[in-house]
Amino acid sequence: MLQVAQIQFAPRLGDLDYNLKRVAELLKQAAAADLVVIPELANSGYNFTGRSHALELASGVGKSDFTEMLRETSRRQNQYIVSGFLESEDEELFNTSLLFSPGGSIEKYRKIHLFLNEKDIFSKGNLGLPVFEVNGFKMGMLICFDYLFPEVWRIMALKGADLIAHPSNLVTYKAFKVVPAQATINRIFIFTTNRTGADRGLSFSGRSFAVDPEGEIIGEASVSDEEVLLTTIDPVLARNKMLTERNHVLNDRFPEDYRELL
Amino acid sequence: MLQVAQIQFAPRLGDLDYNLKRVAELLKQAAAADLVVIPELANSGYNFTGRSHALELASGVGKSDFTEMLRETSRRQNQYIVSGFLESEDEELFNTSLLFSPGGSIEKYRKIHLFLNEKDIFSKGNLGLPVFEVNGFKMGMLICFDYLFPEVWRIMALKGADLIAHPSNLVTYKAFKVVPAQATINRIFIFTTNRTGADRGLSFSGRSFAVDPEGEIIGEASVSDEEVLLTTIDPVLARNKMLTERNHVLNDRFPEDYRELL
Repeated sequence: MLQVAQIQFAPRLGDLDYNLKRVAELLKQAAAADLVVIPELANSGYNFTGRSHALELASGVGKSDFTEMLRETSRRQNQYIVSGFLESEDEELFNTSLLFSPGGSIEKYRKIHLFLNEKDIFSKGNLGLPVFEVNGFKMGMLICFDYLFPEVWRIMALKGADLIAHPSNLVTYKAFKVVPAQATINRIFIFTTNRTGADRGLSFSGRSFAVDPEGEIIGEASVSDEEVLLTTIDPVLARNKMLTERNHVLNDRFPEDYRELL
Repeated sequence: MLQVAQIQFAPRLGDLDYNLKRVAELLKQAAAADLVVIPELANSGYNFTGRSHALELASGVGKSDFTEMLRETSRRQNQYIVSGFLESEDEELFNTSLLFSPGGSIEKYRKIHLFLNEKDIFSKGNLGLPVFEVNGFKMGMLICFDYLFPEVWRIMALKGADLIAHPSNLVTYKAFKVVPAQATINRIFIFTTNRTGADRGLSFSGRSFAVDPEGEIIGEASVSDEEVLLTTIDPVLARNKMLTERNHVLNDRFPEDYRELL
């Protein structure tokens, strides 16, 4: 079994100190969880005035008080932590999701599908679609708008992902129409952690949620409160890919008929 | 604009004469439609006792009273007709969807993803995923369980399909969780025509439906009545693939990152 905590909160745009402290406080409420999922760009906020604004706020993974706090909390609370992070590497910026393991390692995924003005700020993710080990289960990470591309959920399921952590900064509820479908198509768990509040007039829609391999919503946060949403799952359920006794949702695919996808 | 009629009815297993007459009657109520969509295996029923039973009932497309009736109705009513059909070719059986054009042509798609005991009866579809012209719009066909494979919806959208006709014999409501998601992911219209009634104790779930490119259900039939569901759409809406002014749902894909799908 795996207890998952989703930290829904309202980052303040550009206030790195506040965001670090607020996440640290909320992490105390998630101390018992095996895995914590924190929203996209949790350290910085989202709605930058432009690329130079984002560049001022960004840092490398090893050179940030925020990532140090998460690494230390992961170790101390003996839990895995996933968080969105504004990452710089040389002069490039990435919209990144980090995975902190209690043993001290830090893994990452960089967002591939960029939304609206993110295209002016970030480079497209260049680390592919990796899957990581979490307490003996396999987990992938996707970020916000990636959700609209069924290809990426499918690839993670094909790579054996039992669950996907999905840090987000959503502004609509369209994900409720799309994400549960991906969960049941691939028979995986999905944890979409959204933020609340607003950045320079842009409001975020809250309602962080968890979905099981049947596509059922098994946990959902409020529209606007900051909260720690707790869900306990048995990730082994995601390893049963049999929709019927003769239909395996992955093995019933015919890749030779899918060549036009590439 | 395109008026679409979905004919939800209860075929009788093995009663080719009854099914032909019943479909012919219901087609009169659909006389004004530009396009008619009739369920999977509408001529034969679904739950065969085995392969030999299906083989007895099957015929080639040009050699069936049912297909002759549809060809003649299509011509007389000046409309396109899509219907499920139990097709034989030499000793092979296919779960086929036919497209009759008023000009007299007959096109086909053969179901690729077979459900449960269909695997004992049918050969896997060997005609790929074609897209056809209907009144100046582009239409693909998928059959029932194909719906669980997001690859096929995506391929049709990439080939320019504005709408998909989806003849079905569904026994659950899972399609309501999955099909609207595919519509909005690809920004296409989908017409899922289901059957009602039962074959040898297997009950079908009715509720034929139509979905628009936002993933909204724009028409839905009852659970168990036979009925002709009429919906009028503007298929041109499916040609606007811009989710935002900077996000095109197809052009924002990164096929180079999707190689693991094949």
